[in-house]
Order: sequence, then C-alpha cells, then structure tokens
Amino acid sequence: MSVANDALEGMVLSSPDVLRRIPGRRIVLRKDAPIKGKVTLVSGAGSGHEPGHVGYVGRGMLDAAAMGDVFSAPATGDVLTAIQSADGGLGVLLVLPNYGGDVLNFSLAERKSREAGIHAEHVLVNDDVAIKERSRRRGVGAAIFVEKIAGAFAERGRGGTTSLVDVKRTAETVVSNSGSMGVALAPCTIPAVGRPTFAIPEDELELGIGIHGEPGVERVKMMTADAISEYLVGRIAEDLHLASGDRAAVMARGMGGTSNMEKFIFYRDVCRHLVSRGIVPANSFVGEYTASMEMEGVHLTLLRLSDELKGLLEDPTEAPAWHSWS
Amino acid sequence: MSVANDALEGMVLSSPDVLRRIPGRRIVLRKDAPIKGKVTLVSGAGSGHEPGHVGYVGRGMLDAAAMGDVFSAPATGDVLTAIQSADGGLGVLLVLPNYGGDVLNFSLAERKSREAGIHAEHVLVNDDVAIKERSRRRGVGAAIFVEKIAGAFAERGRGGTTSLVDVKRTAETVVSNSGSMGVALAPCTIPAVGRPTFAIPEDELELGIGIHGEPGVERVKMMTADAISEYLVGRIAEDLHLASGDRAAVMARGMGGTSNMEKFIFYRDVCRHLVSRGIVPANSFVGEYTASMEMEGVHLTLLRLSDELKGLLEDPTEAPAWHSWS
Repeated sequence: MSVANDALEGMVLSSPDVLRRIPGRRIVLRKDAPIKGKVTLVSGAGSGHEPGHVGYVGRGMLDAAAMGDVFSAPATGDVLTAIQSADGGLGVLLVLPNYGGDVLNFSLAERKSREAGIHAEHVLVNDDVAIKERSRRRGVGAAIFVEKIAGAFAERGRGGTTSLVDVKRTAETVVSNSGSMGVALAPCTIPAVGRPTFAIPEDELELGIGIHGEPGVERVKMMTADAISEYLVGRIAEDLHLASGDRAAVMARGMGGTSNMEKFIFYRDVCRHLVSRGIVPANSFVGEYTASMEMEGVHLTLLRLSDELKGLLEDPTEAPAWHSWS
Repeated sequence: MSVANDALEGMVLSSPDVLRRIPGRRIVLRKDAPIKGKVTLVSGAGSGHEPGHVGYVGRGMLDAAAMGDVFSAPATGDVLTAIQSADGGLGVLLVLPNYGGDVLNFSLAERKSREAGIHAEHVLVNDDVAIKERSRRRGVGAAIFVEKIAGAFAERGRGGTTSLVDVKRTAETVVSNSGSMGVALAPCTIPAVGRPTFAIPEDELELGIGIHGEPGVERVKMMTADAISEYLVGRIAEDLHLASGDRAAVMARGMGGTSNMEKFIFYRDVCRHLVSRGIVPANSFVGEYTASMEMEGVHLTLLRLSDELKGLLEDPTEAPAWHSWS
C-alpha cells in the first residue's frame, strides 16, 4: 500500500543524517549500520504507529526497523534482511510487541537468520494490563522503553564488553517492570478499509484498547479526564505492585487524533494520582510514540525504575523521535 | 477556564528542569530566568496551540511565555509580569503573532513595561500568505522559527555583546523570509463553546486556515495530498520569490488531529515539489509546533535560509518541544 511507503519515505527524508533505507524494501537502518562490536537491536510493526518504530532508529536505540502495511506485520523477508543488514557480529535482539502477525513473521525471520549463521533472539513485549492472562497481553507503549533502555545498554557495551544475553536480560527487565492501559473516545479509519474500525456512542468510551484500531475489552459510560487517569493509574500500579516510594517513568500518550492540550491535562492528572499513592513520577514522556492512526484517546505506560534503568533511560540517543515531548 | 490551567500545569510538570511557573498566573519562565546580560525573549498566545509557546521556553529560545484561555489572548497583566520577571537588564523582545487580541494586550503590556523602565520592543509575525495584504496576515508557524533563531542569537550574545536592536533585526529577517499556508479537513471544538467552530462537507476542504479554529479564505473540492502540497509550495514559494538554488527550512505541521502518518506523507510530497522547483529542503521539521486543538489538517511554513539563519536554527536549545519531529 503506497501510504505506508510514502510515510516511510517522509520519515527518512526528514532525518537524512540518522536514517537510511534499503531501496525497494520497507526497512530503515541507522545510517552507520552495521556497527561492529555492538549487539544489534531490530524492531518493527505495521505502519500507522508513527513515529514508531522508524523514529526510534538511531545511535542509542534501534539499529533497524522493518515496517508493514497499515496495522499489518512486516514481511518475513524484510525482517530477515533487516537482521542481516544491521548485524554487527555480536548477534541481534528482536524487540517484538505481542501481536499475532508480528510474532509469526518475526519468529520465522529469527529462525531463518539462525540458519544463516546470525545469532538472533527476541524479547516479547506484552505490557497491556487490560488483559488478565500475561501470554495474551498485547505489546503497546513498553516497546519504546525497551528500545531506549536496551539500546542504551548495547551502546554502552560497544566494543564487545556486552553480549546478546546481557542485552536480552535488560530488555526483559524493562518488560517485567512495565504496564500499560488506554481508552478511546473515537476509532480510526484504516485507509484500505475506508470506514471507522468500530463505533463509539458520544457518551461512552472504550476501555483497554490496543493500538491497531480494535475496540477495547470493555465499554463504559463517559468518565472525566481525572477519573480516567485515576482508573488507569490504579489498574497499572496494582498489576505492577507499585508501592509508595517507588519511582516510575511515565509515558502519557495520545493515540494520534488527541490534541496536545488533552495529553498534557492527562499527564497532569496521572501525576496527581501517582503522587497520591506515594509513587514518584521520575521521568516523563508526553506525546504519541506509538500511535493508532488518528484514533482519539489516551494510553498510559508506567515503568518501575531502578537506578540502572533510570540511567539508561537518560542516556543520549540520536533517534529522531526520542524526546520527552514527542 | 480550567483546561488551560491544567494543560499549563502538565507542561511544567513534565519539564521541571527547564520550566517554572509564577503561581496564580498563566506564565511559564525558564527556570533560571532572569538571565543577566542577555536580551530577553517573551511570547505567548491563547491556549490550544500546545506545544506552543510554553514548549519553546528554555535556554536558546524563549525566556517566558504568557498564555490565555483557549484561543484567547493572554491577559495584559500576565504579559507585563512575564516581561518584568524575565528581563535580564538588556531589554525584552516580544514575539507577537498577528492576531487582534494578542496585538492589543501585548502592545499595552509593552507600553506599560516601558513606563516601568524596561525597554521592550516587539516583532510582529505575519507569515500567512493566504491573505494578500501583509498587514492583515496572521501569524502562524513562523513564530516558532522566530523564537528559535532570535533566541539562539540572543543566547550567543550573552554577556552583553548583543543588543535588543540586533535581536529585533534578526527576528524581522526571519519574518520577512517566511511564509505559511494551510488546509483543513475538519474543524475543532473550543471547550467553552462545545460545538465545532464550522462545518466542512466530506468532499471539500478549507484552504488558507488560521490556527484558531476559524474557516479558511476559500473552500474547494477535495484534493489529493500531493495536489495540496504542490499548491501550498507554489503559493508560498511565489510569495517569497524562492528561486532555484535557494535553501529552505521546511515545517510540515499537523493541526492537532492529523495522524503522524499523514504528516510524513505531506512532508514527503512537499519535498518533492520543492526539489522540482530547484529549492533545497535544508532543515526539516515535522510535527505540530503550534496546533489548533484537534483540528484535522496540515500547515506548511517555509523559511529562506542564509548561512547565518541556518546556523542559528541548528544551535542547541533546551526548550522541551524543539525537535525535528515534534
């Protein structure tokens, strides 16, 4: 589908010092990839989540991202080529948000790359606390934290002091300390389908949405911004067993069609409810990060911080979309 | 109105190392203001344009921003207090987008600050080429370029080597080399009004919109993204007499409710049409910068670059919303 190609081209054109494409493929690489003596990080997803994941390619985050059509997994061949093109000789960690098509295509590419002599492993990101069963949880905002923190860890270990096993362990630590949940007020329209993915009455909202235009796990009566924040903070804090005195990184995300004014009001309310539980909002991120086309709604990701994770989160990166306001 | 206060609080909470508020007022200051021996820059506007202008407060850009209710000018008293609180002793330049209420309140504050012994001047930003008569042109995206470039110029001159007159001249150079124009596909809803500011049929678009939810200067049949880009590039390039070989900074902005995917497609198409005219897209900015709540549409600002302007544009800044993808 050409919208996915055009958006990819626009992203690379806008950051020519950091990003480059492999012609004819939906793959974006760090301009200086492959980096010898560094564990390589590769991710990817369908399009429609801009700036994810292309915007997180760059020194200190991903080495490559493979993209698919809107809300469709990247092709196995593209993931494999991304792995082969970006591998710096120490192996490749795939950052894999838990969605069926992505898991299928990434796993196949992982197997094929091993057959081709490249050591690939993956970390499954499944942070959506709206779903009870951990194995069924979708990967949403935590993927961006994984890419930042594991990316910084790999970058620090450049020169061969850090192994793929170490980077994978760091990535898994991020996943196990992360939780996310979101709400939608209006759906999005997938271009190829041409109509909204579902309908929400004016006075209701969808609780526990994913990031592929799918409805939530529950439909409830409209709540105030403050009540939504309190609910989401409560659900995630309880799932992660966040306790008074804990520090958290806070990612308050719009889903694509949400105004910045609303995002900052949401962030403010989230902070108040964290503080009232004694949890310290230590690093803040307000933006979209991984959107769902032009869906109207908000999504919250919390990450429990250790000193090590906080330091890695604050390391510099050249990835064009990594900013506290993004 | 409390949404404006809540959003302001959220912005300051999310960047506590850079921003601080004056309690009880809608004013955000650089945390280390006033900066002695530096010409001071102050701007402001109604709320609803987030991340503008609060997100552009920080070393290398604004010293302070005064904000009003949604799409309403900041109070004269707040502008005056912002000037008085941020002045570092070398005078204050007000960056003033050309909208009636803003001009009125800023001018009054400027006069009062002079009466109080602070030398204040203003630069009027009127970059909207949709309106023929220069004095009636609205201030839209160019204000952000003015804040960046004049802010960098003032920062470079810290220590007293640069005067208010020099900073104002630099700001005026940015204005006279900038042009903007935009289109909308759907309006926005001002919270206090509670209904959309105007209506657009499915198969039409508004050409030449401002950033306050007002309709455009003309309504036309729906155009492709490519045709919109070609039209906007043509209108601005002709107004600025951009010629083959010129370099331009390109700011491709969503209006608040536009998906990132669409912004990057728009940016790509804009680049193609610039290149086909021989104009070099030398610095790129894709994001919102100064939104119009959740309006759906895109806005383009072009700035003709000299070596000096390009260098100032690329100087570092701590302003939380200044990024190439923002």
